[in-house]
Amino acid sequence: MSGRLTIAGLGPGAEDLVTPEVRAALATATDIVGYIPYVARIAPRPGLTLHPSDNRVELDRSRHALEMAAAGRQVVVVSSGDPGVFAMASAVFEAVEAAPEYLSLDIRVLPGITAMLAAAAAAGAPLGHDFCCINLSDNLKPWELVEHRLRLAAQADFAMAFYNPRSKSRPHQFARALEILRAECGSARLITFARAVTTPEQAIRTVTLGEATPEMADMRTVVLVGNAATKRLGPWVYTPRSAGGVV
Amino acid sequence: MSGRLTIAGLGPGAEDLVTPEVRAALATATDIVGYIPYVARIAPRPGLTLHPSDNRVELDRSRHALEMAAAGRQVVVVSSGDPGVFAMASAVFEAVEAAPEYLSLDIRVLPGITAMLAAAAAAGAPLGHDFCCINLSDNLKPWELVEHRLRLAAQADFAMAFYNPRSKSRPHQFARALEILRAECGSARLITFARAVTTPEQAIRTVTLGEATPEMADMRTVVLVGNAATKRLGPWVYTPRSAGGVV
Repeated sequence: MSGRLTIAGLGPGAEDLVTPEVRAALATATDIVGYIPYVARIAPRPGLTLHPSDNRVELDRSRHALEMAAAGRQVVVVSSGDPGVFAMASAVFEAVEAAPEYLSLDIRVLPGITAMLAAAAAAGAPLGHDFCCINLSDNLKPWELVEHRLRLAAQADFAMAFYNPRSKSRPHQFARALEILRAECGSARLITFARAVTTPEQAIRTVTLGEATPEMADMRTVVLVGNAATKRLGPWVYTPRSAGGVV
Repeated sequence: MSGRLTIAGLGPGAEDLVTPEVRAALATATDIVGYIPYVARIAPRPGLTLHPSDNRVELDRSRHALEMAAAGRQVVVVSSGDPGVFAMASAVFEAVEAAPEYLSLDIRVLPGITAMLAAAAAAGAPLGHDFCCINLSDNLKPWELVEHRLRLAAQADFAMAFYNPRSKSRPHQFARALEILRAECGSARLITFARAVTTPEQAIRTVTLGEATPEMADMRTVVLVGNAATKRLGPWVYTPRSAGGVV
């Protein structure tokens, strides 16, 4: 049997959000590669080798997965959420670009439920109109680019989803992001902090930008910001489908 | 048994992309409500009533679903893709806002694989960096707002996903969108037309903006536009995880 590399999304946490397509790929895998907490979601079984690795070694992990697939293994690289949204798919293609002999491999990408959509569903429908999705970490891009995108996104009146809003190593940037958003969108704009979505620790909290503090987010939080029309409705927050003219 | 309203995403088309969570909701439903082609995906069974309805009657459909849930039925409103992305979740909340007595109902939203993520997975990883998601239809917003958002999204160097790029009733607007993108992003920028993703008719085609023509899209197409760093790699198209400064 020839090797295959599958890059699969496990969804945000709940097992009943793993697609049957991904479940089938996991069932026939010989090797699972990924960040420690995501590999920990895979049940051990005879014939399956788990290869957990630390954060921020995405290229090493990708090379290892490609080597094993080239050697005939059935390798699944697992990401949380969707592999194409701030996850392993781009990292694997970067590794392939650096070693193009791997282009002859059987590679496939299997989508998953990304955190912002699970968070939006838990909150109501805050992304029900045009929106953007920004990784707030400056690990792989300059912080000034994040600020530039926040301003333009606000001027476009996009609803927004933020991944990796805040970490211990960069506690101040999210405070700056909130400042920019307050300046651009006003203090009454709604913001939802969705922590550990679809897990037993799920916590959803919607406040105004005026009430929001940096401590409301951590690395397990996805942050959703409404557009100018986003409103509360009982326990829900939702963005109407229609919009007026250019603000 | 008291009534419940579930707003569920069926994913882009393939049955193995329907989450187990949604499958379980469908299995215990008494009534399925939705646009004709989506309801047609649900297998009939004793005790289940299917309520297909035409396009552009989202509010009527939502009211009908709410009425049945209030009468004690187990109602599932189905959308293609994810219900929170240009689909039924916002429409149901609009109907609840107009009749707030329904706020006491048991309502839940179940996420699904939205078309842009399935399209991105089939193409490689074109949305692997910050991106935005725009509905190109001017059915519910003025066209000038679409143009405004396209320009700002290009200036933010977002990758982009477009839903509803083109229909028979508005054949010229997508040509205008391509003009704006060529002016803002240059003719070499990559654009992917993903038609009928995850169905037997799936067709993925990546060209440059200079080569793109309006006829490459129809209402079954999701269009993905790369950012300045998006590149081809053999049969794949992908966006690197890292980015430089403000362009």
